[in-house]
Amino acid sequence: MISSTRKNALSITRKESFSKWYQAVVSEAGLAEHSSVRGCMVIKPWGYAIWENMQAILDNKFKEYGVMNCYFPLFIPVDLFSKEAEHVSGFAKEMAIVTHSKLENIDGKLVPTSPIETPLAVRPTSEMIIGESFAKWTKSYRDLPLKINQWCNVVRWEMRTRLFLRTMEFLWQEGHTAHAIPEEAIKFAYEMHKVYNWFISETLKIPTFVGEKPHHEKFPGAVTTLTIEAMMQDGKALQAATSHYLGQHFAKAVGIQFQNQAGNLEFAYTTSWGCSTRMIGGLIMAHGDDDGINIPISITPYHIVIIPIIKDETTKQSIMEYCSRIKSLFNDKKILIDTHDESPQNKKWDYIRKGVPIICEIGHRDLVSNTIFFTRRQPTLEKQSCSYYEFEYIANQVLIEHDQILAQKAMEMSTEKTNTNLKTFDELKEFFEQNQNGVIIAKWCENPETLSMLDEIGVTIRCAPLQQSGTTGPCILTGVPTQKDFVFAKAY
Amino acid sequence: MISSTRKNALSITRKESFSKWYQAVVSEAGLAEHSSVRGCMVIKPWGYAIWENMQAILDNKFKEYGVMNCYFPLFIPVDLFSKEAEHVSGFAKEMAIVTHSKLENIDGKLVPTSPIETPLAVRPTSEMIIGESFAKWTKSYRDLPLKINQWCNVVRWEMRTRLFLRTMEFLWQEGHTAHAIPEEAIKFAYEMHKVYNWFISETLKIPTFVGEKPHHEKFPGAVTTLTIEAMMQDGKALQAATSHYLGQHFAKAVGIQFQNQAGNLEFAYTTSWGCSTRMIGGLIMAHGDDDGINIPISITPYHIVIIPIIKDETTKQSIMEYCSRIKSLFNDKKILIDTHDESPQNKKWDYIRKGVPIICEIGHRDLVSNTIFFTRRQPTLEKQSCSYYEFEYIANQVLIEHDQILAQKAMEMSTEKTNTNLKTFDELKEFFEQNQNGVIIAKWCENPETLSMLDEIGVTIRCAPLQQSGTTGPCILTGVPTQKDFVFAKAY
Repeated sequence: MISSTRKNALSITRKESFSKWYQAVVSEAGLAEHSSVRGCMVIKPWGYAIWENMQAILDNKFKEYGVMNCYFPLFIPVDLFSKEAEHVSGFAKEMAIVTHSKLENIDGKLVPTSPIETPLAVRPTSEMIIGESFAKWTKSYRDLPLKINQWCNVVRWEMRTRLFLRTMEFLWQEGHTAHAIPEEAIKFAYEMHKVYNWFISETLKIPTFVGEKPHHEKFPGAVTTLTIEAMMQDGKALQAATSHYLGQHFAKAVGIQFQNQAGNLEFAYTTSWGCSTRMIGGLIMAHGDDDGINIPISITPYHIVIIPIIKDETTKQSIMEYCSRIKSLFNDKKILIDTHDESPQNKKWDYIRKGVPIICEIGHRDLVSNTIFFTRRQPTLEKQSCSYYEFEYIANQVLIEHDQILAQKAMEMSTEKTNTNLKTFDELKEFFEQNQNGVIIAKWCENPETLSMLDEIGVTIRCAPLQQSGTTGPCILTGVPTQKDFVFAKAY
Repeated sequence: MISSTRKNALSITRKESFSKWYQAVVSEAGLAEHSSVRGCMVIKPWGYAIWENMQAILDNKFKEYGVMNCYFPLFIPVDLFSKEAEHVSGFAKEMAIVTHSKLENIDGKLVPTSPIETPLAVRPTSEMIIGESFAKWTKSYRDLPLKINQWCNVVRWEMRTRLFLRTMEFLWQEGHTAHAIPEEAIKFAYEMHKVYNWFISETLKIPTFVGEKPHHEKFPGAVTTLTIEAMMQDGKALQAATSHYLGQHFAKAVGIQFQNQAGNLEFAYTTSWGCSTRMIGGLIMAHGDDDGINIPISITPYHIVIIPIIKDETTKQSIMEYCSRIKSLFNDKKILIDTHDESPQNKKWDYIRKGVPIICEIGHRDLVSNTIFFTRRQPTLEKQSCSYYEFEYIANQVLIEHDQILAQKAMEMSTEKTNTNLKTFDELKEFFEQNQNGVIIAKWCENPETLSMLDEIGVTIRCAPLQQSGTTGPCILTGVPTQKDFVFAKAY
């Protein structure tokens, strides 16, 4: 039996099925949907508004570091990939390839015609094509560092897709820099890593594990890959952003050379770093509840929604005026008065699913008594009423608490699901069998042959935390004494 | 012989060759360049910053009209085009077609493998794919209007490309709306047309001719196409933005149906409207001069650039502090202190080419005398000096004048090149032979058979101005008495 408070909430709870619940949030909060193009999504207004707010914050931050936005071609001639063998043997194999330039009606059927000379890959990432420009722009050490970023779409031929988490096409930013000095490049990769961690943990309030990817999980061609592993409510990790120090690998592949201060030709040292619409999936799985998504106030499309309750035409104008007066209390908040032709109850539940922190319902009674009736999204959909004069203060307080509650809930969840006390593979195995999922921090000897043990139980090594304990202890897979700590988890 | 003021300016003047001058501005002001992918451009930081500023202004304006941003797939299954025959016989034939999903190394050569079942077109425009979503989202008249927009890349297989003006891939926004009432849809298309004209004429200060496209120039599938024809310095017209009322054409093709207030199923009435990075090309050709681009203050990446002139290390710190103090005079302006390792003279000329309205050169002498030495980009690179205390006031004044001068120059140019007095085809032909280019406003009888006369002299009918004279006079092509006024010009 569905309880009365459940009847308007999501069609399924997290406990019933976390993965179906995820799909329900995406669909029922109006964030995104599948399109008729296999693997491609439609990002709907509410989902896209969250993305725009994420973009604005990150973009400002990148610019503080002297990064400038550019735009590079969608297409990469396939020949260019042959310059970079390691790149091809990596992820770049499954790609959308353009081979024809015309669509013609032949015998009543539309068929591709006019084959093109060099097929074009739709960019899966842009190291090679941006590297070509860097090569043109770089003559002397004076031209370096180059720090650029682009916000764009990329395509990876994925067979099993999940909205936001894994789709054939997705939106992202990819930053690329070239430096004259390796230490400067390494430092920049760490700085962007810090920016991502600040954004995901401080702004999005999602608990993270930050560190370096083990060798077998690095980006193809990278010397070092730094990652933000975000903690989801089901105990799985989500790789939310990565920063790579690429050494001279790509510079040599595409010829980014400069005359150094000593007058000698030298290959540049490059970095790349990116995050994508995947973060919206992370946001849902970190903060969502059985009523819908929850969104930190810095990226919510609206802080407050006001729903006018009009019972007859005679009071309509005065209620609408009262709503406008409420809206005008706030200069620095995003507020919507929703006059859409829909029942107030349906509207209210729609905004609950959409995670609006404060939802006001304003009818004639409120107008007469000069009060404001509202529902706060956190912690448990409390209904509250206050006088018009108190509302600005109270709403500001509720918004601050909204973020605090989200952060606290997520942190408690993360602490509860993190275990640092396991010492043997049997314990590790038992942990994942009993707890289903969670994060283990333990030592590993870095012998690649041991990885098959983890494969069997579906666990991966997410990263070596930047903050290492420095102690010596048994490798959790082999028992041999070793020093380095790693994060183990199942992952998206 | 190159005069002393020319030696740092562009490599070619407008008089020598307008089209080569255009290429020189794009290249020498660092706006964009060709990539190794035929027909695709790299938009460099300065060019992209102009685009971002254009985007921000337009995006805010669209949102005022209740338009929400979304994102739809890059790919369109080719089958979808067969639903819309008129669409296919129009511009949609030349397209990039994805046919394979893998790139494999076979005998040392990278070749496309894994052919896909239904080939995918890279979107040339998104009426069909967005229409599919609209069809899903629309059940009742209560779901309408739908007003969405997306900022994205599109691809059209162009053989002859020119940076910004015509490239295979370009960036644009495409707005799409669906309405329950035809009059409402028509009104919305006109409103967006007005927004574009406001943006191009008021914000970009480019003289425009606004009106309706003649039948043969309409967007395929449109009932009405409204256009902004911008006036370039060479007297050619640039189609800078279009808004289409599409009737029920696309709604019928993809099934956007709703239950109307009477309870009957009805096809929706749709619009689409777009503008692109092409506007940057328009900006260059409307305001550029022999020293580079000129940019109105609302979209310039920087209003003021401060170049410190450091002759020795002992005064470096105090000069830098003085530069910071100058910068801090302004809260609402975009100001850069350029500390890049390059000669002040080269920097200055780079910013002149880039169209920065005010360029300060600050050395020890300025510090001692508490003065500011600057060059104003408009009208003629005057050098000026003022006290620190006057500078805020003077700079604000210079910026206001900067826009006024650009607007006035462009308006004078447009007036000079516009002729409304021609009555016969011989006069028209003579005009284009003598003046090279310009805009003719004259009457036309709308007989499509007469168009071949214009083809011969390379002239096109740009639009029927929204403001019609209402008089009767001879058709400029046939002499038969007729009423409707049209704009004739050569065009990009």
